[in-house]
Amino acid sequence: MNMRFARRMEKIRASETREILKITERPEVISFAGGLPAPEMFPVEEMKQVAVRVLEEEGKKALQYATTEGFVPLREKIAERLNSKFKTCLETENILITNGSQQGLDFSGKVFLDEEDVVLCESPTYLAAINAFKAYMPRFVEVPSDENGMIIEELEQRIKEYDKVKLIYVIPDFQNPSGVSWSMERRVKFMELVTKYEIPVLEDNPYGELRFEGDMLPALKSMDEKGLVILLGTFSKTFCPGLRIGWVAAEKEILAKYILVKQGADLHSSTFDQRIIAKYMEDYDLDENVEKIKRVYKVRRDLMLQTMKEEFPGGIRYTYPQGGLFTWVVLPETINAREVLAKCLDNNVAFVPGGAFFPNGEHENTFRMNYSNMDEDRIVEGIKRLAEVLREFV
Amino acid sequence: MNMRFARRMEKIRASETREILKITERPEVISFAGGLPAPEMFPVEEMKQVAVRVLEEEGKKALQYATTEGFVPLREKIAERLNSKFKTCLETENILITNGSQQGLDFSGKVFLDEEDVVLCESPTYLAAINAFKAYMPRFVEVPSDENGMIIEELEQRIKEYDKVKLIYVIPDFQNPSGVSWSMERRVKFMELVTKYEIPVLEDNPYGELRFEGDMLPALKSMDEKGLVILLGTFSKTFCPGLRIGWVAAEKEILAKYILVKQGADLHSSTFDQRIIAKYMEDYDLDENVEKIKRVYKVRRDLMLQTMKEEFPGGIRYTYPQGGLFTWVVLPETINAREVLAKCLDNNVAFVPGGAFFPNGEHENTFRMNYSNMDEDRIVEGIKRLAEVLREFV
Repeated sequence: MNMRFARRMEKIRASETREILKITERPEVISFAGGLPAPEMFPVEEMKQVAVRVLEEEGKKALQYATTEGFVPLREKIAERLNSKFKTCLETENILITNGSQQGLDFSGKVFLDEEDVVLCESPTYLAAINAFKAYMPRFVEVPSDENGMIIEELEQRIKEYDKVKLIYVIPDFQNPSGVSWSMERRVKFMELVTKYEIPVLEDNPYGELRFEGDMLPALKSMDEKGLVILLGTFSKTFCPGLRIGWVAAEKEILAKYILVKQGADLHSSTFDQRIIAKYMEDYDLDENVEKIKRVYKVRRDLMLQTMKEEFPGGIRYTYPQGGLFTWVVLPETINAREVLAKCLDNNVAFVPGGAFFPNGEHENTFRMNYSNMDEDRIVEGIKRLAEVLREFV
Repeated sequence: MNMRFARRMEKIRASETREILKITERPEVISFAGGLPAPEMFPVEEMKQVAVRVLEEEGKKALQYATTEGFVPLREKIAERLNSKFKTCLETENILITNGSQQGLDFSGKVFLDEEDVVLCESPTYLAAINAFKAYMPRFVEVPSDENGMIIEELEQRIKEYDKVKLIYVIPDFQNPSGVSWSMERRVKFMELVTKYEIPVLEDNPYGELRFEGDMLPALKSMDEKGLVILLGTFSKTFCPGLRIGWVAAEKEILAKYILVKQGADLHSSTFDQRIIAKYMEDYDLDENVEKIKRVYKVRRDLMLQTMKEEFPGGIRYTYPQGGLFTWVVLPETINAREVLAKCLDNNVAFVPGGAFFPNGEHENTFRMNYSNMDEDRIVEGIKRLAEVLREFV
């Protein structure tokens, strides 16, 4: 029989990254494709202590249904942490716990987007955000971005051009996929502009704490005079992703909408996992864990960029990320990164072709490289294999 | 400023149950309002062993990102369990892990429902399903149900009357809120009819294993010749709800749509929680846990119904559930259960008014009573307090 699905299902496609990830599960593949943290950094021993303590001290509550908003002590800790790291002014009541920041992306689509509404985003932008929004059938309008972030003049031009701009989606800290971090000047000007036009902003910040050099910069949310910014975050990169615990931080009137959506979507996030993270933050120092992660990722970034410099043929550009998990490679325009990938997979090395990060397509001469998940030897070996393939194309 | 949200946000309201649950958190309140399992049944000690084993044996994998479909050994165990309990014919590839069955409800709306599509449902039906579907702006058409389930002639009449029936939503086992379990005859006739008209069926089965007396009946999914039935389930009632682990079981072509939606919604469910349940099912006997739960709930059901019989004034009807968590009370038509509740809260006893379980309103003379979450003494005391209030109204 032919089943009739909702119209929106025609828009939703399998994420290319996750399909590639399946291929790269073979142990012989050196994969720069995923956005996976280094599992050797996961605090497994501490988790054992913490899981047992949660069950001993509050077992019945930790396994029971709970409020949609999330575990109050965890929400409190998240608000405090954001305030101290990113200069925001948030309270417990501004925080909703979600299943990773991915759920915050989906909910943002649900809360804001009607069919044909315009979403402005960086170009390129995070492909799983594009996929999440697509379920709500908006139009994506890309705003050109450079090494300092979204270009403000280009943004204003599009705000004027499209009268149905409903949401601006940005990742100002170590963007996925480009690795770019917005300059302070760009942040200030961006907030001046959106405040003037009163357009809601979705600020996605999964990587902001992973800065290897330079000063941490304030979140857009910290400059948000009119309560326009919704800030998404996650423990996936600072602690571990398997627990799927993230958050939405927003003004209470906006958060109320997200809470309603969360209630219908899955009632609440895992009570057990929420309490484990809260207990971990009580008993251990999450900052110490972040420092450990940063040390390892910095070494890997340096090694990846150095090896690319030594091995890549001429005519290839790539970004220098000051933090986060990714660098972004731009090939000469005649080269298709999907074709490069096909050859690379034969040589057991992988990345994500860049085209999928542009909601309106093209830019097939780009790709994203992750340096957090492979150890040093594999980074060197993988870049050498990749460079060998690239030399066939350039 | 006035923020423009999506049109669907006008449809979504706070769940009455969850709002009442907040009030009933005060320890002096005897609450028959929630649908909470008895926390004293949670296998806290076993969970401690299992959590530690998962972290010792597979810590890095248990804390890392994982595939959207879910942990393969868990999906395998769920398929086997459904086949043995409910006579289905499912394989690992038919199972997607979700955040409780609530997420399966939301995804079903997302996969199937366009605005103005018709959803047929029992009358009354589960209010959190109504809330989940509302985000997709369908029309709800209620099908009268009796003590044997949905009335088939009424169903056929509505299928003929509405040409845009996209989905039929049913809970054939110990329905929430009515406590009714469909007879075998009704199941067979229902499946004959939907097979004839080829309409997708969402079979929600969170309580089916909790049968206190009589034989287990096969799932609608087991009689599904054309692959029309999507079966939702959860560990919330047989194990514990705090982990938020449920599943969607469907034909592979349909499940593929749900997997795409899951990917955009939150990538995957908690890796750690999935592996904990799988390990628990390996190391312990989930059936034994279910038997323990059933013994306790049966005592509580008996005590609640007996006390209602002794204490309630005349003219009040209620269902006799053979399993599950709820009985359903019908007052004389002149009495508004919301007004009864207001008085009850003054006397520190609570239930959920029934009106919210009818997507098109009315039936304000009904309410839902939960017997799983209060101990025996509180059940007797609570019913006495409730009866006292009811005597003022009747």
